[in-house]
Amino acid sequence: MDWAIGVDIGGTKIEAALVDERGAVEGLYRQATQADLGPAVVLDRLQTSIRIVLDQAPGPVRAVGIGFAGQVDASSGVVYYAPNLPGWRDVPLKAKLESTLGLPVFVLNDVHAAAWAEWTYGAGQGWDDLVCVFIGTGVGGGVILGGRLQTGASGSLGEVGHMPIVADGRACRCGGRGCLEAYIGGWAIAEQVRQDIQAHWVEWGDVGPLEAFTAETLADLCQRGHSRAQAWSDRLGRYLGIGMVGVVNVLNPRGLILGGGVLQGFPEWLTVVAVTIQALALPSAARTVEVRRAGLGRHGGLIGAAAWARWQLQKEVTG
Amino acid sequence: MDWAIGVDIGGTKIEAALVDERGAVEGLYRQATQADLGPAVVLDRLQTSIRIVLDQAPGPVRAVGIGFAGQVDASSGVVYYAPNLPGWRDVPLKAKLESTLGLPVFVLNDVHAAAWAEWTYGAGQGWDDLVCVFIGTGVGGGVILGGRLQTGASGSLGEVGHMPIVADGRACRCGGRGCLEAYIGGWAIAEQVRQDIQAHWVEWGDVGPLEAFTAETLADLCQRGHSRAQAWSDRLGRYLGIGMVGVVNVLNPRGLILGGGVLQGFPEWLTVVAVTIQALALPSAARTVEVRRAGLGRHGGLIGAAAWARWQLQKEVTG
Repeated sequence: MDWAIGVDIGGTKIEAALVDERGAVEGLYRQATQADLGPAVVLDRLQTSIRIVLDQAPGPVRAVGIGFAGQVDASSGVVYYAPNLPGWRDVPLKAKLESTLGLPVFVLNDVHAAAWAEWTYGAGQGWDDLVCVFIGTGVGGGVILGGRLQTGASGSLGEVGHMPIVADGRACRCGGRGCLEAYIGGWAIAEQVRQDIQAHWVEWGDVGPLEAFTAETLADLCQRGHSRAQAWSDRLGRYLGIGMVGVVNVLNPRGLILGGGVLQGFPEWLTVVAVTIQALALPSAARTVEVRRAGLGRHGGLIGAAAWARWQLQKEVTG
Repeated sequence: MDWAIGVDIGGTKIEAALVDERGAVEGLYRQATQADLGPAVVLDRLQTSIRIVLDQAPGPVRAVGIGFAGQVDASSGVVYYAPNLPGWRDVPLKAKLESTLGLPVFVLNDVHAAAWAEWTYGAGQGWDDLVCVFIGTGVGGGVILGGRLQTGASGSLGEVGHMPIVADGRACRCGGRGCLEAYIGGWAIAEQVRQDIQAHWVEWGDVGPLEAFTAETLADLCQRGHSRAQAWSDRLGRYLGIGMVGVVNVLNPRGLILGGGVLQGFPEWLTVVAVTIQALALPSAARTVEVRRAGLGRHGGLIGAAAWARWQLQKEVTG
C-alpha cells in the first residue's frame, strides 16, 4: 500500500489527509486557513498541515496534491489568483512546496480536483466525457473531455455557475448579470427567498429571523411540506435544469454529475434536471447523457487532488 | 506539392475541392445534394463530386476529408444523424467511401471542420484553446481545447446556439426555449423583426414585402442609417454578447472566433461582443480571451475537412 497526500485549501479551512490508491481517506487534519494574514502565513500553515499528515503515514508517500480554491495553472503549479485568499497572485506553489517537502507536488483548482475525484473513484467512473457541477454557496464545475481534465487557457474552464441564463437578469456577485449562480447559488437562494418573505410574510408564516434564513432553512421547510417553500424549490430546480440544458448542449457529456451542499437539501432537483434535459436539450446530446448524484461528498476535493498527483506522477514516469 | 480533397456537404449542396497543405483551394466542384432522394443517391453524388475533383488533381492526392452537416462520430466516420438529410442514420460513410475510392477518408461535423480550418490556417492559428462560433441561419460552434478538436460523447459538442440565454424565452426551432439561436440565428432575426414591423409599420416605413424581409434586409437598412433597424442590431448584438459571456466563462478559450453569413452583415457585433465580455465575464477568463473575425469565409468547412484528413493521416503514420 502506498499513499498520496491530498489537500483541499479554501478561504476558511485547510484539510489534508492520506489517500490510498482506491481513494480511501486516512488521518484527516483540519485547521483554519487564516487567509487574512496573507500568503506567507497561509503557506506556512499549509506546510504544517502536510507535515502532520506525512508524519502519521504508515507507509511511503509518493506525492502531494493540492486542490486550491483559486485560478491555477495546473501544469506549472502556479496560483494566479484566489478570490478568497488575499494576496495570492502568481505564487509558484508547486515549486515552493517541493523545495521544502522534498516530495513531488501537483496543484490544481479545488473544483477541478473534485471533478477528477468523481471521474477516478466516484459517480463518473468509466465515462471519458464528464461534467461535474457543484452547487454550494457558489456554483462551480469541472470538465473532463476525452479522459482529460480540461483547464482552459487560464485555468478557469468550467465556470458553469457564471453562464447567463436570464439575459440582463439578477446581479451576480461576480459582477455579471443573470448568471446561473445568481439564482441557485446558496447566497442567491437566501437573497431571493428573504425578499419574498418580506413581501409575503403572511403566506410564509413563522420561519424564524429573516437574517438567519438560508438555503438550508428553505430545504427544511420543504421537507416539512411548506407549500410556498416547495414552490420556490420547484422554481429554483427549473433554473438549474435550464442551466444544465446549456451545459449539455455545449459540452455533450456522457455523464452529468451534480453535487454540493445546496443540492443535498433538494434531492428532487436531480430528477428535475434529468426531465428538463430530455424536454429541452438537443436530442443528439440528451440521448447520450446520464444525470447522477456526486458519489464522494465533502472530501471529494482532497481525494481528487491526491488522485491527480498520482496521475501526474505516472505521466511523468511513463512520458 | 501534394493534395487532400475537402468536401462540405449540407442539406442543399455538395462542394468538393483540392486543398494544398497551406489551405489554398483549387478546382472547386459544386452540385445540389438532392437530399430528398435519400442516402443512396446522396452517396452516389458525393462519390461523383470527389471523383471529378480527383481527376483534375495535378499531383498525388493523399486523403479525403468530409465535413458533414450532421452528428458524426469522427473516430469511426459514421454519420449518426443529419437533421437536413432525410434517411441518414448510422451510415458508415468513411468505410463506404474508402472501399470505392481506395483512398483514406475522414469524416467530421461540418462546423467542427470549419473550426479546425480556423485553427490550422485561419484566425485561430497558434491558440490551443479556441472556440469558433458561426452565425448563419442557425448558430453552431466548434471547440478546440489543448490543441485537440473536442467532439463530446456523441459528436455534438459545441452547440453554443442552443445554450439558453433567456430562461423560458422564445421557442427555438430545436424544440428548446430561449436558446441563443432563437434570438440571433438568421431565421430568428427575420421572425422577430417581421413581428416588430407588423406592430410598428409607421416607424419602419417602406421596407418592402414582409415575407421577403431577412437578416440581410436588416443589415442593409442598418447600413443606410435606418434608426429602428439599428436599434434591433444593437439589441441582437447584445444578446450575442451575453451568449459569448457564457461561452467564455464555461470554456475559458484563448481565442473566440466569430464568423458566418449573418455576422458579415453586422460587423459592429464583434466590438459589442468584446466589450460585453470585458464587462460581464469573469476577470480570470475575460483577461485571457481575444475576439476575432473568422479568417476563411465560406470555404472554411471544406478547407478544414481536408486539413483534418491530413492531420488524421499523420497521426496514423506517427502513431
